[in-house]
This record gives sequence, structure tokens and C-alpha cells, in this order.
Amino acid sequence: MRFTVETKGHYDFINITQKVKEVVKNSKVQEGAALVFVRGTTCALTVIEYEQGHIQDLKELFEKLAPENADYHHHLKWGDHNGGAHIKSALLKPDLILPIEKGELTLGTWQNIVLIDFDERPREREIVVKILKEK
Amino acid sequence: MRFTVETKGHYDFINITQKVKEVVKNSKVQEGAALVFVRGTTCALTVIEYEQGHIQDLKELFEKLAPENADYHHHLKWGDHNGGAHIKSALLKPDLILPIEKGELTLGTWQNIVLIDFDERPREREIVVKILKEK
Amino acid sequence: MRFTVETKGHYDFINITQKVKEVVKNSKVQEGAALVFVRGTTCALTVIEYEQGHIQDLKELFEKLAPENADYHHHLKWGDHNGGAHIKSALLKPDLILPIEKGELTLGTWQNIVLIDFDERPREREIVVKILKEK
Repeated sequence: MRFTVETKGHYDFINITQKVKEVVKNSKVQEGAALVFVRGTTCALTVIEYEQGHIQDLKELFEKLAPENADYHHHLKWGDHNGGAHIKSALLKPDLILPIEKGELTLGTWQNIVLIDFDERPREREIVVKILKEK
Repeated sequence: MRFTVETKGHYDFINITQKVKEVVKNSKVQEGAALVFVRGTTCALTVIEYEQGHIQDLKELFEKLAPENADYHHHLKWGDHNGGAHIKSALLKPDLILPIEKGELTLGTWQNIVLIDFDERPREREIVVKILKEK
Repeated sequence: MRFTVETKGHYDFINITQKVKEVVKNSKVQEGAALVFVRGTTCALTVIEYEQGHIQDLKELFEKLAPENADYHHHLKWGDHNGGAHIKSALLKPDLILPIEKGELTLGTWQNIVLIDFDERPREREIVVKILKEK
């Protein structure tokens, strides 16, 4: 199935854990895996402790790696200014695969699934979840 | 199934989207996931907008992270000079998992699957695709 | 299934390839995929040539990206000092999906599955493996 998320860009960290947990529960699959995928090239998915200090630390690392307000070759193509967002998206990737045990997504205590939107403007993001059964 | 790709190394970005889409179509699976995996430790897979300016931006980031022509501890082991390639491969990883909906790989409009070869010489790369059915 | 690994932290690289291969063999699945997942936000999984020089190169890159002994915003939350470990975990992610062909995990010759523990102290890490059958 799919769901959409409204994002603000500029390192917007959206916690999608509850939504994915619901999809897993509704699937009634007891043992297997959940694929989570975001359909965009200026955002990405990862797993973090969802805590504001850590989120600030990640923003600072990403700004160091590929600053938002720098010049990029990609800008010459379309005239937009999100070349840094594309770089961070490519590095972090749009996909995650997570285990399901006894009908539940078995993340660790502090693990949350986050969509990070690196783009320079608000977007509506489509997330696809597929439920795979073990054996 | 497997297919092979000839690469030139030195940040060769090979677009394998069409090939993976064909495998998905031939599988006749309507809903599920496609695992894509490259069997090498000096290359990796990711998803990007396949545009030359963005590719140049990514090369520049990777060169900043782990330059091709630097000294690495790994060089002492085998006498080769691809220590930087190993680092970038470890960071980006060899695996991807992508959703299949209504018999098609449902990538976003701009999303392309790329193999990046970081090695210092031409290689033949083996890519494995496995098709998993939902529920 | 799950297994646990004792880690020392501070860039402990644990080779879990043999353990995952055993799980795949015992599953008797001939064609499919193995999901490997670590339940922690200060460690991650990747695939590397398991060689001490390369491991040293990776430690040096990770120290450059997010040093262990720096100040992080995350430290203000809990009073611990593993903010750099959280950053590296978020960047590398806790998940891997690997192909199974003819009943075996088909990694390349040099590919090894590693758990990297970035934390500041010894930990017991839980790794979940799920076996998915092709089509």
C-alpha cells in the first residue's frame, strides 16, 4: 500500500514509525519483512533515535557533506537549487527493509523510521510499503 | 537471475533501471519487491536522478570523502591501489530493495537504479535480482 | 530467527557472515533473500572485504565524519557521550538484504557481512534474520 506525507524540506525529519506499524498489523503477517520505500530523489529513509538533539547533529553533518546553499553542477540542468538534496538522497537511499516477528515490526527500543526531506521546498511524498512473508 | 555489466571504474555510473524493469516484467509478479545486489567490494548500488551534472556532483563528494589517489592501509595488503574504492563501497552498500505494484517496478519519475564502480580498472560486475511476492 | 553478538564498541567490526550463512542453510530455502537487521541506534550493518587495513581505513573515515570525542547536541538529552555513534549508525543504517541462490547466500568472493559497533561501551547486540522465498 501507499501513504503520503506532507514535508517542509530543509532537513524535515518525519517520524513514520506508527504508520508503518499499522500497515504491518493490518497485514496479519506473523513472520516476514516490511519494505519501506520513498518515491523521490531529494529525500531518503533511515532509522534513528527520534530525539531533537540527534536530529540537529545529523543536520549539521549533512550540511558539512553537501551544504544547501552551495553551487552544484546539477543546478545548470533545471535551474533549481536542490543539488545538495540530490547528493544526500543518493548517499542515504530511498529504501529500508525491516523484520516482522509475531505480527509486529521488531524495531529496537529506540529505533524509529524517519523520512528526511532534503529538498528546498514543501513536498508531498509518496511512501510505498510492501509486506513479505517468511518462507 | 543474474546479469553482468562491463564497467570502466573511476566513478563509472551505469544505469541498470531498464534491465531490472525487464526482470520484474518477466517474473509476472504483480505485487511484491525486487532485490538488486552487486557482487563486489569496490562498487555499490543506489537510486538517483540520472543526470550528468548530478553525477559530477556525486563524484566530487566521493572524492572529498575518500580520494582515489590517496594512501590507504588496505594498499599494504595486496599491493593494489583501490583502498578508496573499498571505503565508498562500504559506505553505500551493495544492496537495494524496490517495490513492485501492478506488475511494474514503481520508482518515482526521476528515480534510476545505478551501479557505481569506484575501482581503479575495468571490471565485469555480476548483479543478482530476486523477485519476492507480497504476502 | 535471532542471534546475539558481544561487542566492545569504539568501531568494533564483527564478521557475522558465517552465522548468517548457517541460518540460510538451515532454512532449506533454495531461491530467495535473507534480511539481516540489527536492533540498535549506535551500530550498523554493511558488506566489506574483511581485512584489517581496510577496517583501519573505515575507522579513519568515520572518525573524520563524526569523531567519537566531540560534543554533540544529543549529549544534552541523556548525559551520555555517544552522539557520534548515533550519527554513523543513521548514515549506514541497520538493514541489509542479500540474495540466496541454490540454497546458499551468494556473496561475492570478498564480501563479508559486518556489524560495526560505534558505541562508547561494550554491548550485547541482537541481530534478526528473516528468510524470504522467491516468488
